[in-house]
Amino acid sequence: MTEKRSLRDSGCPIAFGLDTFGDRWTLLVIREMLLKGKKTYGELQRIEEGISTNILADRLKHLESEGIIEKEQDAENRRSYLYTLTQKGRDLAPIIIEIVLWSGKHDSRPSALREVLHKIKTDRAGFTESLIKGRA
Amino acid sequence: MTEKRSLRDSGCPIAFGLDTFGDRWTLLVIREMLLKGKKTYGELQRIEEGISTNILADRLKHLESEGIIEKEQDAENRRSYLYTLTQKGRDLAPIIIEIVLWSGKHDSRPSALREVLHKIKTDRAGFTESLIKGRA
Repeated sequence: MTEKRSLRDSGCPIAFGLDTFGDRWTLLVIREMLLKGKKTYGELQRIEEGISTNILADRLKHLESEGIIEKEQDAENRRSYLYTLTQKGRDLAPIIIEIVLWSGKHDSRPSALREVLHKIKTDRAGFTESLIKGRA
Repeated sequence: MTEKRSLRDSGCPIAFGLDTFGDRWTLLVIREMLLKGKKTYGELQRIEEGISTNILADRLKHLESEGIIEKEQDAENRRSYLYTLTQKGRDLAPIIIEIVLWSGKHDSRPSALREVLHKIKTDRAGFTESLIKGRA
């Protein structure tokens, strides 16, 4: 997203947030990591919506530079990298949860995240906490 | 955003949400209407981050087609239109609020929405309700 000029100069917290994660692919990559526990480039590339390898590489680089994810060499496979959410990244959980709830209310089609919606509706505080603490 | 293919076919509620409002400018236009009560094209064009008239026109059209806003002729000035958020649009308030909170935690610069952040921290339930019900 380096091609776009920065919105955050306005000092608005919403603009700051959108600079960091306000892109469709960026948020879907965060979804894969936060809700599906994906950690490798290969796993992240197998995304239901289909993502091109250059978009994925660009978004991972952006998320790393924003401190949302960390990249480290895989100890078990030194040719591979593992991507994990930082605390700043896991703190996005409440935003993701509100998006799931909003769509649950306004999208009449059956949802691919029915289980997640169920968890939110059954024990929202506990589920949010487990995502923020990285225990989900 | 008609130029982009639809993510929502995956059935994922996050993809559905991102199709609807997952664009930086789209969310900033919603911010202007929800938090600043803007109603006219001219008001919406005076946005801190600067928005080109073709992007604004495109996003308003998109938001109308998604049922997030309604457009009606201004009774007092028949050459002008008024844009208002629908219930589906006002229901985005909790997402906006979570973005403000996340940025409040992770952006160290002084915020342009300090007053909003203060309202959220003082009476989050009441403030959210007032936005959802259109009484803010």
